[in-house]
Amino acid sequence: MMLNGEKKIARPFRWAMVGGGRLSQVGYKHRTGALRDNTAFKLVAGAFDIDAERGKEFGVNIGVDENRCYPDYKTMFAEEANREDGIEVVSIATPNGTHYEICKAALEAGLHVICEKPLFFTSEEGEEIKALAARKGKIVGVTYGFSGNQMLLQMRAMIEQGKIGDIRMVELQYTHGFSANDAADKTSAAQKWRVDPKVAGPSFVLGDLSTHTYYMSQLIMPQMKIKKLLCDRQSFVGSRAPLEDNAYVLMHYENGAVGRLWTSSVNTGCMDGHRIRIVGSKGSLEWWDNLGGELKYEVQGEPTQTLIRAMPYLDDSCNADERLGALHVEGLSDSWANIYLKFAIAMDAKNRNDEETLKNLVYPDIDAGLDGIRWIENCVRSADNGSTWVEFEYKKAALV
Amino acid sequence: MMLNGEKKIARPFRWAMVGGGRLSQVGYKHRTGALRDNTAFKLVAGAFDIDAERGKEFGVNIGVDENRCYPDYKTMFAEEANREDGIEVVSIATPNGTHYEICKAALEAGLHVICEKPLFFTSEEGEEIKALAARKGKIVGVTYGFSGNQMLLQMRAMIEQGKIGDIRMVELQYTHGFSANDAADKTSAAQKWRVDPKVAGPSFVLGDLSTHTYYMSQLIMPQMKIKKLLCDRQSFVGSRAPLEDNAYVLMHYENGAVGRLWTSSVNTGCMDGHRIRIVGSKGSLEWWDNLGGELKYEVQGEPTQTLIRAMPYLDDSCNADERLGALHVEGLSDSWANIYLKFAIAMDAKNRNDEETLKNLVYPDIDAGLDGIRWIENCVRSADNGSTWVEFEYKKAALV
Amino acid sequence: MMLNGEKKIARPFRWAMVGGGRLSQVGYKHRTGALRDNTAFKLVAGAFDIDAERGKEFGVNIGVDENRCYPDYKTMFAEEANREDGIEVVSIATPNGTHYEICKAALEAGLHVICEKPLFFTSEEGEEIKALAARKGKIVGVTYGFSGNQMLLQMRAMIEQGKIGDIRMVELQYTHGFSANDAADKTSAAQKWRVDPKVAGPSFVLGDLSTHTYYMSQLIMPQMKIKKLLCDRQSFVGSRAPLEDNAYVLMHYENGAVGRLWTSSVNTGCMDGHRIRIVGSKGSLEWWDNLGGELKYEVQGEPTQTLIRAMPYLDDSCNADERLGALHVEGLSDSWANIYLKFAIAMDAKNRNDEETLKNLVYPDIDAGLDGIRWIENCVRSADNGSTWVEFEYKKAALV
Amino acid sequence: MMLNGEKKIARPFRWAMVGGGRLSQVGYKHRTGALRDNTAFKLVAGAFDIDAERGKEFGVNIGVDENRCYPDYKTMFAEEANREDGIEVVSIATPNGTHYEICKAALEAGLHVICEKPLFFTSEEGEEIKALAARKGKIVGVTYGFSGNQMLLQMRAMIEQGKIGDIRMVELQYTHGFSANDAADKTSAAQKWRVDPKVAGPSFVLGDLSTHTYYMSQLIMPQMKIKKLLCDRQSFVGSRAPLEDNAYVLMHYENGAVGRLWTSSVNTGCMDGHRIRIVGSKGSLEWWDNLGGELKYEVQGEPTQTLIRAMPYLDDSCNADERLGALHVEGLSDSWANIYLKFAIAMDAKNRNDEETLKNLVYPDIDAGLDGIRWIENCVRSADNGSTWVEFEYKKAALV
Repeated sequence: MMLNGEKKIARPFRWAMVGGGRLSQVGYKHRTGALRDNTAFKLVAGAFDIDAERGKEFGVNIGVDENRCYPDYKTMFAEEANREDGIEVVSIATPNGTHYEICKAALEAGLHVICEKPLFFTSEEGEEIKALAARKGKIVGVTYGFSGNQMLLQMRAMIEQGKIGDIRMVELQYTHGFSANDAADKTSAAQKWRVDPKVAGPSFVLGDLSTHTYYMSQLIMPQMKIKKLLCDRQSFVGSRAPLEDNAYVLMHYENGAVGRLWTSSVNTGCMDGHRIRIVGSKGSLEWWDNLGGELKYEVQGEPTQTLIRAMPYLDDSCNADERLGALHVEGLSDSWANIYLKFAIAMDAKNRNDEETLKNLVYPDIDAGLDGIRWIENCVRSADNGSTWVEFEYKKAALV
Repeated sequence: MMLNGEKKIARPFRWAMVGGGRLSQVGYKHRTGALRDNTAFKLVAGAFDIDAERGKEFGVNIGVDENRCYPDYKTMFAEEANREDGIEVVSIATPNGTHYEICKAALEAGLHVICEKPLFFTSEEGEEIKALAARKGKIVGVTYGFSGNQMLLQMRAMIEQGKIGDIRMVELQYTHGFSANDAADKTSAAQKWRVDPKVAGPSFVLGDLSTHTYYMSQLIMPQMKIKKLLCDRQSFVGSRAPLEDNAYVLMHYENGAVGRLWTSSVNTGCMDGHRIRIVGSKGSLEWWDNLGGELKYEVQGEPTQTLIRAMPYLDDSCNADERLGALHVEGLSDSWANIYLKFAIAMDAKNRNDEETLKNLVYPDIDAGLDGIRWIENCVRSADNGSTWVEFEYKKAALV
Repeated sequence: MMLNGEKKIARPFRWAMVGGGRLSQVGYKHRTGALRDNTAFKLVAGAFDIDAERGKEFGVNIGVDENRCYPDYKTMFAEEANREDGIEVVSIATPNGTHYEICKAALEAGLHVICEKPLFFTSEEGEEIKALAARKGKIVGVTYGFSGNQMLLQMRAMIEQGKIGDIRMVELQYTHGFSANDAADKTSAAQKWRVDPKVAGPSFVLGDLSTHTYYMSQLIMPQMKIKKLLCDRQSFVGSRAPLEDNAYVLMHYENGAVGRLWTSSVNTGCMDGHRIRIVGSKGSLEWWDNLGGELKYEVQGEPTQTLIRAMPYLDDSCNADERLGALHVEGLSDSWANIYLKFAIAMDAKNRNDEETLKNLVYPDIDAGLDGIRWIENCVRSADNGSTWVEFEYKKAALV
Repeated sequence: MMLNGEKKIARPFRWAMVGGGRLSQVGYKHRTGALRDNTAFKLVAGAFDIDAERGKEFGVNIGVDENRCYPDYKTMFAEEANREDGIEVVSIATPNGTHYEICKAALEAGLHVICEKPLFFTSEEGEEIKALAARKGKIVGVTYGFSGNQMLLQMRAMIEQGKIGDIRMVELQYTHGFSANDAADKTSAAQKWRVDPKVAGPSFVLGDLSTHTYYMSQLIMPQMKIKKLLCDRQSFVGSRAPLEDNAYVLMHYENGAVGRLWTSSVNTGCMDGHRIRIVGSKGSLEWWDNLGGELKYEVQGEPTQTLIRAMPYLDDSCNADERLGALHVEGLSDSWANIYLKFAIAMDAKNRNDEETLKNLVYPDIDAGLDGIRWIENCVRSADNGSTWVEFEYKKAALV
């Protein structure tokens, strides 16, 4: 049965956003995902903009009650807490450097949290928030929005079923060329903070781009753990240093597989999106988000196969997230809708202490967010150590 | 400025659906388009299913008040007319044979109408409804859902600007292979009526598929009129006769250009979607919906160009419908959202007697619906006359 | 066993060319094909150019003895007949209007003939030459050079084996845009005669381009016979009339299948080459010469397959023509080599009265040439009759 | 003026092969390249096979005089030296481990040499042979056969003209999956020696595959020098150790650019061939050998361009190597023909002491061969040092 908007939970969650206002491109993706069916979320409040007036005007324009358009998140959390119909969950779509404090405040206010990537600057912060969420009985979801494409679940299923044999090589790529020069660094608010270490954290493209792809690789191959990696990063636009606008990573996995990741915002002229190839001893799987409804399956010595979205021969886990049916092109909007629906199902299950549901639900949770932070930490550590091999650390903060 | 969900009209229309329930694949596309931003439409009522009980359960599941889930459209129109907050517009997503009566009833009930294609069985019905809508001061929109892809507007702009010179050849294709055998004819409710002339009308794939592509061609080249055409249609699955499952059309345009269209549901194994190529004396434009964010522009003797969605070099009319931004794959959901937003803007303008807005708004209106009917009529007339050339008739019913 | 140049016949034929000199693009393709391995042909004489001096200089430059570079074909046939080591076979790469007389003279001189397409102006001429060749015990081969790609044999084998079921639709295309305007009509010797009916015959692109594609379709589906066709042709560059620079053909086959062919030299910006798609009741096959080592095989309801050149899973008849092996891109040169090798094998068999070999050899013979003429005749007859349906005539001249 | 087989040198060289017999796939490529036009080389002798009888039979079958089919190269060099019409140049298509001794013997016998890659095991051997060739006044060409594709010269020209700005990133790939398991290691003579260090030398895929791609990168960007590199190599089929069947290389160039190379014979199911992408500060160039007549040119912020073979807008240096013309697919055969023609021109110039011609001729010479050896040496040194960064050494042997 395809998804068609019928409710999966008893009633939609009362939802608010921090950030994501008129000047934010990603804010609209959150709303598109959350409100796809109006059966999972209802947008009732927001602190949409650092400019309170602009934020209010924007909120009203998208249908939020004027009185629930707040000047800042603190006011929002405080005032909403006083309402009987107050918000239950908040999405955070602000620059990286503010994620930690807003996330913490939201959990302490008793809210579920959905947060942009990269989650925080350090894994210590991540562990602290994870522990806090656990104490509060709340979900923290991370918007790796691209990861909702169901063909990734098809890859996961086929790998688990042994369709490609033992994994040997992993090719990951997420690059574009929009920062090939520094024009936008100076003129675009959205770009300015991304190259400012105080706001962006210890990385530019490793955090902004590759955390998506790294999460996708974990989603596809949950059994694969990195043993060591080597990261070579560059700042081709010099003013961005120490933040990188291009990075290469080599990986060694615990099972003996190897891999590469390329992330870049200076891959001039490239409009590429995500490219993923998993090579096994028997066959390979390859996916590219621009033709995201196709999956190439290559078995050595046999004709190459192209698997296509919505077809009955796909795994049930893949088709469970189908919305439009064959011939009808899905895109990023549908992927975000899938992610947000799973957030809602997770929050509902959490509220009902339904650990069985939670255990079986594949979605970007706090651990996926933490893994993203650790990914960046390990990459930066290697890069700053002369681009040498480092053991991949899964360290936990003391308080956990 | 990209679309981000901020309201384009004062408040969302109160909207209902006839049909489009649990077993309908297209119903979800209507809701996805209409409710994308919750600032254009609000779904408040419905007669979603021929099985009233199933329809009510479904309506409740997608958030409609139980009391406004009606057993049939007549009851809905009657009861909603008694409410102060009654519906203002209805979408019709039922089998073809019912469009005319529901459309008529809706207009007579004072509602705007959005209707599935092909609109009706005959152009006489079309002219009658057009006249009725005019008298009632209402909009009739037609859901050529694919046509909302903004790269079609880019093609329109480039052609108008003379970028390809005089149009010489038009290649149109919309084919798939899902009816390569008759299995679904017997088992699928959605397919069964499509091959029954009493419900589907005088054609199968000409109406079901090619009306989309024909409309797209008009959208791209509004100045091009067909002078004569020849249609050769087949029923490869014999039980479908006289309805065709494959058809070829040759066209002669008034300016001397020629063209071809292929539509089929027996193009075995094809998962293709729409393919459009317009050849001019200087250059050509080509678009394929599976990579719908790309447009190939070929000037003889120069390197081939690929134009990509959301880039600043595109025409303003194209970028005005942009929602996700570069690198972020749009799909059919976004196209439907564009179409439905334009329906809302048209209805709002109509309500305000804002003819200026209406004049400049490019969307599939009643004339586009009528043209689709005429397209089928002309094709069927040619096919039934031994697949010979016929003058393209733009006849009007007497009452107009 | 792949082809590697080892001889297939006792010794190479002594070979000459008429035409194909310095200004001819196709002449080099003949030599590339014939001389690939130096075990099938040896170029020993030629009347390469209408300008005798230039022809001699050219001949010497490609290694032909100065004394065997003749001013014209008549002299060549006469003088070579006096030599003990005289030529045994001649290739004709001159404008269409001269094929008949040269071909006739060559056969009468006791030579095997290899001739450019389209063979002659009329099927009467074709039947006459066929009868003459039969009397003389000689081969007449026709250089549909593209048709030597072995993936076409793979298609033939798969269709014969029932892999796509009953054939329903045939899509043929061979178009380019190099004649989008009339510039070359005036300046290029090669183009000038092609648009002159006295030299080119009754068609431009139908003969120049579509005879290739039509032959390929016969090669792939030898059992398919056209029952009737309709041809709609245009002269977009008016000075070319009555010769067409664009043509559409619709076909009805005797088994109930239908088909289309598009040929054009005004498909502006198109660099496309041959495109062939054969749709059956179970599956489809699709091939495009630019990626001529790949064959798409689509079975409805199954993943799409891409078959790749040189792989063991291909049919023996396909791999028998393999030269370079997997990963190593073959192109048009290899296709011409395959065709010419088969000409040599046919001539050798003919000389030895080995009818068994001749019967099993798939190559473009006199009948393929005749079929090309008939194809043009039927198309032109339909086009000149108001683009109406005409029965496909396989008429034979009286003398046969 | 396109190439059409007219002679570029006074007379063809008398040519022989060592190896390349019936069981050799590459031998046929040599002959296809050398003998394309019969105006550059004439095959007159050979020691084609380690099995002398089979070699003789083979030689006769491809047209070599029985008396000049020799049992081994030593005999051939000795006996041919006694003939007035003895060989002038020899091609070596034997397993890697024999290149050095045969090359040396050939030069000492006064022959020009054309040799398979990788040239020798060590750069010391390379320097020795280079010095020997210099003393003897002979050419040593290396058959990086793929590098003759003229679109690589187009890339070279565009980069030199500043069309992509400063080079920042270099992506090189040459992978396949034919050795995904060890089946062929045991059964195929051609594969067996490739995984035997005594015959293959210090590497498998680095030498067998990546030397091609590395040379192509030098051809495209002659000004780019590697400063340091890091190589991570694996033997996924354990029995191949220490020889790698997969390798990743990271590169730092002297101008600050970075790069990656991937070579593999265990990229399961991959039928890919060469992929090259050069990213500059203004634009990027991308080429893939399977569609080797196309070149993607991407300038940030502009429509993507695809440049197509044989078009007048290409650089003269590119079109100078054109043979078939637009629409007519070239392949590997044409590339080998280009390479071999340049060998002939170089040898002819060398014989005439025409240093001007030699200076301007771009072809894989002894230095290109030496660079390939050094590439392997540096990669292996890094890999064997724990996959760490090593300075790229361009060391010269003492004797030079």
